[in-house]
Amino acid sequence: MEIAAKTEDGACCTYVGRDSAGHFVKMVHNGIEYAFMQAIAEAYDFMRKVLKMPSEEIGDIFAEWNEGELASFLIEITAKILRFKDEQTGKPIVEVILDKAEQKGTGKWTAQSALELGVPTPSLNLAVVARTISYFKDLRTKLSKRYPKIPPNFSIEKAQTIENLRKSLLFSLFMSFSQGLWLISTASETYDYGINLSEILRIWKGGCIIRARLLNFLREIINENPQNVNLLDSDKSVAFISDKIGAIKSITELAKDFNIPTPVLNSSLDYFLSISEEELPANLIQAQRDYFGAHTFERKDKEGTFHIEWEKF
Amino acid sequence: MEIAAKTEDGACCTYVGRDSAGHFVKMVHNGIEYAFMQAIAEAYDFMRKVLKMPSEEIGDIFAEWNEGELASFLIEITAKILRFKDEQTGKPIVEVILDKAEQKGTGKWTAQSALELGVPTPSLNLAVVARTISYFKDLRTKLSKRYPKIPPNFSIEKAQTIENLRKSLLFSLFMSFSQGLWLISTASETYDYGINLSEILRIWKGGCIIRARLLNFLREIINENPQNVNLLDSDKSVAFISDKIGAIKSITELAKDFNIPTPVLNSSLDYFLSISEEELPANLIQAQRDYFGAHTFERKDKEGTFHIEWEKF
Repeated sequence: MEIAAKTEDGACCTYVGRDSAGHFVKMVHNGIEYAFMQAIAEAYDFMRKVLKMPSEEIGDIFAEWNEGELASFLIEITAKILRFKDEQTGKPIVEVILDKAEQKGTGKWTAQSALELGVPTPSLNLAVVARTISYFKDLRTKLSKRYPKIPPNFSIEKAQTIENLRKSLLFSLFMSFSQGLWLISTASETYDYGINLSEILRIWKGGCIIRARLLNFLREIINENPQNVNLLDSDKSVAFISDKIGAIKSITELAKDFNIPTPVLNSSLDYFLSISEEELPANLIQAQRDYFGAHTFERKDKEGTFHIEWEKF
Repeated sequence: MEIAAKTEDGACCTYVGRDSAGHFVKMVHNGIEYAFMQAIAEAYDFMRKVLKMPSEEIGDIFAEWNEGELASFLIEITAKILRFKDEQTGKPIVEVILDKAEQKGTGKWTAQSALELGVPTPSLNLAVVARTISYFKDLRTKLSKRYPKIPPNFSIEKAQTIENLRKSLLFSLFMSFSQGLWLISTASETYDYGINLSEILRIWKGGCIIRARLLNFLREIINENPQNVNLLDSDKSVAFISDKIGAIKSITELAKDFNIPTPVLNSSLDYFLSISEEELPANLIQAQRDYFGAHTFERKDKEGTFHIEWEKF
């Protein structure tokens, strides 16, 4: 890979910001990369197990997706990998590779930093957890005997389902960037990095693992309003999400029926449903905390903090 | 609360282990507590928004649940809270409390430690994230206007759904304990704490926030085989889970249809589906990592680590 790739928006390098800004941004880049890779893996898992598609055919789908909105380095190499034959056995290479994912720590640091800074990055967190779970291959093999998975007795329409998978990936990718950019923005404020989010999206367009056509769209959103750090507060986002939310609901529901874990797709959907929800059930949690720990609560109808002597009543 | 509560199994205090063992166990206790509270909040949210039940009636359901397998301190106080009237407005108190959950850090530390130690605790992790999201009340209110939630046009059978919610809570609670105990066990090995998991389950039976009837059952499982640190490798667990998995699938699918976020229920189900799955799609992730970073992979058919010069072909 070139040191500084070029795109129509210039060389993919920039002054990121003060102090450790560059390291932080590279770390979050990798956190998003974990989520992107896991989302792709979930779509692959769905196609092979639910739609019973052979590896090469799944590769063809990824190649097709790479021609459209999903065009990206990771989708491109996924297509190549899935069509790649193992020299020794003649089988598709993915079918001989052990399903134990390793990690070098950057995804983990991203998740830990997000927890520290109080920024929600559930998709990034669960992508790390998914690798962790994959690591316990012996335990999984043992438990799989105890818990045989029985697929349901209905068939699903293939072409529509593949289109829904494509939209689910786009939805999840959008939410992963939303979470990652929000984290960078909060870190920039907290550590006084002085990061320009539009510039980050620009340099991610070439020469890095998460480069993707979608970045042009995300950059339009942030350029419209640089305060919209999680990308959701825009008419453009509303149009994008409205087009895809039905698809990701359908896919994640079918995945449950067929016993396919989809942690990144699920957490991307739950992230969106939570952050766009006025009334979450956290009022009950605040009441519980006040009940057992006198942690107090706020009210909707007036200012201040309140406590109840619950046991007295 | 008493300093050392007593149960039929003796006083709820013990020598936990060497060095910081006691602190670590108390931290994980709180991590499980976050997940338990969030799961309860999700069930409450479902009952009020999908089943349109008033707060008092939901309180009655929790009171009923507290008589059976779900009997626990948190279910008990939830029933009391939901039936509690605000003195000033006469409304149920939960309806005037602001839905912005605070946290003091122990749940976050648990999630961070689990990531550090490579133990999957997705339910504990997402319970912390759920509180974080709730905190952004102004943003949520703003985004809720942009993304109005339209409920689907079908009705659901109330009694069966409530029973499914009960089973979903039990499933999620089991998985939260599974994750928490696995974390404690790994920490005990890593830091040489010398912790006895059965003793931990025993002292959690009284005087603490996660005390629950279910602990007796979990303790039977671990006493049967102390190596079964995540509680899944037992005939007892198979019977328990088989009875509940259909219910949690149904509830989490309906929740999506009705736009209700259920991050802890979803991640509990995905955790189970992943850790009991022999073939996860991590083979594709390993291939991607080898493609872009020459990180190598293992094969299913022979020992060793392998690398492919992907671009050469």
